[in-house]
Amino acid sequence: MSSYYAQEGHGPYELHDVGDFVTQEGATIRACKLAYATFGKLNAKKDNAILVTTWWTGTSKIMEQIYVGKGRALDPDKYFIVIANQIGAGLSSAPNNTPSPHNATRFPKLRIGDDVRAQHKFLTEKFGIKRLALVFGGSMGAQQTYEWAVRYPDMVARAAPLAGMARNSDHAYLFASTMADALTGDPAYHDGFYAHSHDMHRGLRRVAKLMAVTGWCAPFYQKQVWKGLGFASVEDFLTGFMENFFLPMDPNVLLYTLDKWQHGDVSSHAGGDLKKALGSIKAKVSVMPIENDLIFPPQDCEAEAKMISGALYRPIRSVCGHLGLFAVDATYNADIDKHLNELLAVKA
Amino acid sequence: MSSYYAQEGHGPYELHDVGDFVTQEGATIRACKLAYATFGKLNAKKDNAILVTTWWTGTSKIMEQIYVGKGRALDPDKYFIVIANQIGAGLSSAPNNTPSPHNATRFPKLRIGDDVRAQHKFLTEKFGIKRLALVFGGSMGAQQTYEWAVRYPDMVARAAPLAGMARNSDHAYLFASTMADALTGDPAYHDGFYAHSHDMHRGLRRVAKLMAVTGWCAPFYQKQVWKGLGFASVEDFLTGFMENFFLPMDPNVLLYTLDKWQHGDVSSHAGGDLKKALGSIKAKVSVMPIENDLIFPPQDCEAEAKMISGALYRPIRSVCGHLGLFAVDATYNADIDKHLNELLAVKA
Repeated sequence: MSSYYAQEGHGPYELHDVGDFVTQEGATIRACKLAYATFGKLNAKKDNAILVTTWWTGTSKIMEQIYVGKGRALDPDKYFIVIANQIGAGLSSAPNNTPSPHNATRFPKLRIGDDVRAQHKFLTEKFGIKRLALVFGGSMGAQQTYEWAVRYPDMVARAAPLAGMARNSDHAYLFASTMADALTGDPAYHDGFYAHSHDMHRGLRRVAKLMAVTGWCAPFYQKQVWKGLGFASVEDFLTGFMENFFLPMDPNVLLYTLDKWQHGDVSSHAGGDLKKALGSIKAKVSVMPIENDLIFPPQDCEAEAKMISGALYRPIRSVCGHLGLFAVDATYNADIDKHLNELLAVKA
Repeated sequence: MSSYYAQEGHGPYELHDVGDFVTQEGATIRACKLAYATFGKLNAKKDNAILVTTWWTGTSKIMEQIYVGKGRALDPDKYFIVIANQIGAGLSSAPNNTPSPHNATRFPKLRIGDDVRAQHKFLTEKFGIKRLALVFGGSMGAQQTYEWAVRYPDMVARAAPLAGMARNSDHAYLFASTMADALTGDPAYHDGFYAHSHDMHRGLRRVAKLMAVTGWCAPFYQKQVWKGLGFASVEDFLTGFMENFFLPMDPNVLLYTLDKWQHGDVSSHAGGDLKKALGSIKAKVSVMPIENDLIFPPQDCEAEAKMISGALYRPIRSVCGHLGLFAVDATYNADIDKHLNELLAVKA
């Protein structure tokens, strides 16, 4: 177990017990815990609730830090903002915090639909929320956002999928697979039963480098954006930022959530027909890709936007690509808030 | 030693002995052999010679098959076409065909300038060529093309760097590095002294997958271009095409040429000043990036084109990205020939 996944680094967060949770692939997570954080107050009409979902490696903390704040679009003075951590991602029930025999690689396989069903149970049971003013999330958070809009069309008033797709592309599948290979190919992996996550530092460092290539992008390096982050060279950035980011993480957590990412696909709700699935969305949707994103390129996101009735298409300016999600571009927060405010102003 | 690097698969080619060759990094390749193939005849004025360079993993054979032919821009009825194989790439002197003690990882480190100096010696000594009508090559072949134009400005009339850069980018450096890691991280690597190259099939398969992500691109998968290549699924393509392509190769050959790729940089001729180095080019240059190229993106190539006096900028249409080099797009050969013919028609 890694101490990385704790209140100290990612809190404050709370745990909600959603009960014995039967997963989509047919296993049971007993007394499944959903980790979450809330900001602001639910009003009497319960119509000011916003659900924020999390990306791969992300927790409620980073989403709060980057996207929530007074004067921002996600303003806790106006909205009741609930940030839900993914199942399997380290804070909610996951391979790193579940006792034997369901620990490590014996934890149940996870799908995006599992998160969304658990979040639905949590939001309705715990808060009595009947309709969400907005569901918003980036990358894997966008996968959850799309899943919400398709699975619970009457409960989602607005949806803003950022830098992610409703049906994961084959290209993104292969990229995720190279990161999984880097972990499972580490001699210290031992079928997932490594003694300590740090024993797998070689695999984790490889994941860091793969993400350095495809998470960022050519313009990020061409313009030496890493200099502004306080690094002396690309090598310095690679170790000091990227490896530093991944080294404390748990490999099984990364692998379970990679597998979940790879299988994200709302078309499963319409027999594989993506157009039909996206056509069933009732929410007002603003599709927000990030420029230069190599994992979920704007053109792929735009193709999905065209399948959604009345969808807005709002690319975010960036020389960073996918990891622009971390708000590195000076214009990033302004773009995000502008497009979210536009969406929130739409009567829905 | 792998039987892949032989006349059977890559011939006919000839070997020219350039003598004891002192490399840029300060080692000696004794009786260094340059493998080459020629097409057409050198005319009496010796002004119809074209040098074609090779890309990473490429040999003279693939360059002949894709780029040379009657009625094509590189027409052996008009031109004397010399295709030179890289040092270290398996056919010319390389870690796989050099006897102990200079075999495997004791083969000298190589730089793009080594190839170009050896090619210069070969072309002048063997054929008495004083000026090349054109130097043309893709990817690492473009690196050699730029090196020629900067190192021997009076000998290059025209230069067409395809899908490559004069100074390798940090982004491309990192990508190449992930492929090197995949090989050196294979438990069968044994510091480069593996018994048989096939013992490293796991590392080679990883290289294949990394190239499947970054060599191709999102539109290649979105449009399922692999179907037209005769494969039933992405997995089928990954194994049947990409792994099949890399599995017969020699890991040390790949590692030596990756290292050479990573260090390609003509600015070393001007104390690190790329603008000055490219400004010294006397050749008429046509910069030809490939659309959707994730390794050498058009915008990066365009930035270099702007540093070259009078350079043409001619992007090649493609939904394949970098590996569009293999002429998968229906419009590819027509684009290549059109732009090469335009350049060859310029008085230079």
